[in-house]
Amino acid sequence: MAISVPHNGVNAPALGAFSQYLQEQAPEDGTAFRASVHWLGGFRNEIRVRDLAPTFADEPEVLGGTNTAANPVEQILGALGSCLAIGYTAGALARGINIQDLRIDLSGNIDLPVFFGLKDGHAGYEHIDAKVHLKTDASDEDVAALHADVYRTSPVGNTLERPAALNVQFVHE
Amino acid sequence: MAISVPHNGVNAPALGAFSQYLQEQAPEDGTAFRASVHWLGGFRNEIRVRDLAPTFADEPEVLGGTNTAANPVEQILGALGSCLAIGYTAGALARGINIQDLRIDLSGNIDLPVFFGLKDGHAGYEHIDAKVHLKTDASDEDVAALHADVYRTSPVGNTLERPAALNVQFVHE
Repeated sequence: MAISVPHNGVNAPALGAFSQYLQEQAPEDGTAFRASVHWLGGFRNEIRVRDLAPTFADEPEVLGGTNTAANPVEQILGALGSCLAIGYTAGALARGINIQDLRIDLSGNIDLPVFFGLKDGHAGYEHIDAKVHLKTDASDEDVAALHADVYRTSPVGNTLERPAALNVQFVHE
Repeated sequence: MAISVPHNGVNAPALGAFSQYLQEQAPEDGTAFRASVHWLGGFRNEIRVRDLAPTFADEPEVLGGTNTAANPVEQILGALGSCLAIGYTAGALARGINIQDLRIDLSGNIDLPVFFGLKDGHAGYEHIDAKVHLKTDASDEDVAALHADVYRTSPVGNTLERPAALNVQFVHE
């Protein structure tokens, strides 16, 4: 069960110091984020980010995998949901709103025949639905303003809603 | 260490049966994928997909989190890398190419002051760089054709390169 704690459990001094840093000396080209993926055989892959414990991607057995982890399109939905959740949490802190509970359910459809090379078309999500359940004792008005801010400034939301340029360099070893 | 195994470790009969199913009766609206995110306090969130073990999202301490998991924008990079890796693996199987090793490094920059509400702009990735290292004994020509197919039909690649419509329904409880 999620619990309501001061500052919604966020390290508010750290967040404030980082905001101050951004106001004073935000890097002009933005802040770099990185991940590395290593194939483990079949559809199972290890994902490394910084010095964190590795995570994995796989496919369900019906898709030829070993069903040990969410697949990449499911991970996109999880990333969007957690990005929105982090946005609500940070925004609620700034507005003095205590979060009591927060759940987000996400779904989207993929036209798998395109991925399988059976026809041309859009291989990804054209639409993603998210349903947010936010439990607070704040007013509907305050919470609606929070939601508008979060939606507008979500890094993953912005990444999905706008076209990103992919630069894939391929090395055959 | 990744190892080279028959069919690149893919359950080829399952994949073939699913491809046959798609050719005969692909669902007109596509195949639905889902994830659920539950706030755990602070910036830590639990991500549930099907009946798999939960995964998590968090933020580094400098961003006010507890640094227990990759953050959502890092997870986007991991999802793109694993989607490409799964594409190479499936495509290599179809082309009779044995994968000996496959690594993908990904990076992108986020303009954090937009996420922090300090200025207007694009809060997400405008560009993502990926560098793919694929080790095989196949010809450069075969591998280049594989790469072109994978890039064109990547569900996560397509999702990122094209604008997706987000429909976020918000419920204040």
